[in-house]
Amino acid sequence: MEKFLGFLREYDYEGALITPSSNLYYLTGMAPQATEERLFLLVVNKEGESVLIAPKLYENEVEWENSVFWNDEENPYEILERVLTSLNLKSGKILVEDTMRASFLIQIERLLEDCTLHPLSGITRELRMRKDEKELSLMKKAAEIADKVFYEIISRELIGKGEKQVALEIEFLIRELADGVSFSPIVASGKNAANPHHMPGNREIRPGDFVILDFGARYKGYCSDITRTIAVGHPNEKLKEIYEVVKEAQERAFQSVREGIKAKEVDKAAREYISEKGYGEYFIHRTGHGLGLEVHEEPYISQTNERILERGMTFTIEPGIYIPNIGGVRIEDDVVVKKKGKRLTNAERELIIL
Amino acid sequence: MEKFLGFLREYDYEGALITPSSNLYYLTGMAPQATEERLFLLVVNKEGESVLIAPKLYENEVEWENSVFWNDEENPYEILERVLTSLNLKSGKILVEDTMRASFLIQIERLLEDCTLHPLSGITRELRMRKDEKELSLMKKAAEIADKVFYEIISRELIGKGEKQVALEIEFLIRELADGVSFSPIVASGKNAANPHHMPGNREIRPGDFVILDFGARYKGYCSDITRTIAVGHPNEKLKEIYEVVKEAQERAFQSVREGIKAKEVDKAAREYISEKGYGEYFIHRTGHGLGLEVHEEPYISQTNERILERGMTFTIEPGIYIPNIGGVRIEDDVVVKKKGKRLTNAERELIIL
Repeated sequence: MEKFLGFLREYDYEGALITPSSNLYYLTGMAPQATEERLFLLVVNKEGESVLIAPKLYENEVEWENSVFWNDEENPYEILERVLTSLNLKSGKILVEDTMRASFLIQIERLLEDCTLHPLSGITRELRMRKDEKELSLMKKAAEIADKVFYEIISRELIGKGEKQVALEIEFLIRELADGVSFSPIVASGKNAANPHHMPGNREIRPGDFVILDFGARYKGYCSDITRTIAVGHPNEKLKEIYEVVKEAQERAFQSVREGIKAKEVDKAAREYISEKGYGEYFIHRTGHGLGLEVHEEPYISQTNERILERGMTFTIEPGIYIPNIGGVRIEDDVVVKKKGKRLTNAERELIIL
Repeated sequence: MEKFLGFLREYDYEGALITPSSNLYYLTGMAPQATEERLFLLVVNKEGESVLIAPKLYENEVEWENSVFWNDEENPYEILERVLTSLNLKSGKILVEDTMRASFLIQIERLLEDCTLHPLSGITRELRMRKDEKELSLMKKAAEIADKVFYEIISRELIGKGEKQVALEIEFLIRELADGVSFSPIVASGKNAANPHHMPGNREIRPGDFVILDFGARYKGYCSDITRTIAVGHPNEKLKEIYEVVKEAQERAFQSVREGIKAKEVDKAAREYISEKGYGEYFIHRTGHGLGLEVHEEPYISQTNERILERGMTFTIEPGIYIPNIGGVRIEDDVVVKKKGKRLTNAERELIIL
């Protein structure tokens, strides 16, 4: 929060209006559930004065030094109007939580006189990209859960099961160990694995399939994201060859990580190797994305991202090769930047044949 | 959509800006997944002209007569500016999807010259409250799945299982049969059942517990919502007595439903009976809520809602009695208004002792 206020002053923002979100959790630790229809808003000004306006229902759940709890007979916008006046937030540049509902913002804007509004993520993105030790230990835990779920799911019989069924089993395993999934698990088998955005369907897993399993856990807010590609039954020789290319590309990208280089250099390490091996046209996405309270955040590991990697940044490395009508392979780990890179996920990367 | 345009003209709105949501699905059938960070927007004017602006990624997934797909090198707001001009939407009263992200709205507002913005739900609420036969058949299916899941979960051994575990099993069962849950299942056992908003925790179910199971399925967008309270092992006599009071209150409320009465009269039928039996102070919530594409919508079955019930309206009837340090009972069905009421959920309402 101190750093956040520093940024507010540096960039000349008067204050911020923050609804429940990963930003609210990051800045305050508050993560109220199911506030959708009722206004729950933290108002902060650049001096660090703040007031929480929240529905009465949350009175026993959240604690904030200055707070006003409103009941269903009150109009929370009348309360907000007084708060904006007392915190001197009626004009100037104001930050607004990106995910705030339009229905709230429309009402709030009627109270603001001469303000320009800007997305809060413009500031919080910079803060959240660099994880401290406490955050890293939570990310490590989320990654360990992902590893564990991988070993558990491949210990089960997969042949004859639908992709959707396997995805549900993965989700179920994650939710027993963590707060929830960081995204809906992807299970893409056989030809379906040629589409990196495949949604698990009813196709049954058959001998000879390569199956991409892509999933992650959310632990105390922090996300993991792992992908492994396994062979079921007699593996297809072409896909076995591709597997080795992707594995080596992933390793090269990982080995390239160190503080001070640009994000795009990590992408290049994977992409160049895949191109050398003749599969460049089949690597159709970026090499990775930042990871933290959200499953996609900065720094993006793309061909164009000039951002310099710093200690404490965390991201995925996940090259893949996708051949239409044949299938695909992707291998993904979560990595933190130290002097060099360090993997957070550690499940087996050698080809597993079930 | 025709009715919607009629409402636009009647209330003098120039048009609407609609992001993915239950309203977009209701009006167009489009339900794109995971559009969060990229602008996906349907622009409609009161003449019924419309343009869809969507990320390139969705080109093969969605179809709309006039559409512009943008790629990551383009600025979707430049496209939007041209669309607003061509549809003559730069001034006047404009509807905005309630759940649109503030980060989108902030950018959109820079393009609007002399507009006032209003929440879209003000109009769609009126339309969505009255279900047609096709919608009712989907709601019936969602309700049947809820019934089926109830019988399946009570066929399992519950003693010794944590509430959270049972909630996960319920969710798993629903997701095998439906598109997903309509909300996170509630499992409240023993004293925990005295809190109607209890979140399933680690408490293990024990002989003598009454257990409230409250869950629902989402089928092609439409929600069901059922609650049953079961006794595990030797039932507590006090709770058995309360059970009969709630069951009769629920039946009386159901019998009171017919077209032309006010929503509050249904609430009254349940509330009066519970008060007569001396438990009035322990019935601490409204009798029900509307149900459809959202799990809470109009008409609310509360003590004050004057809305006249019409054919095709659907809502829950779910009286409950909650006694601190003892436990609670709630019984909930989904009901549609015909000449009289008709239940959509039909799982056993007599006390089941496992």
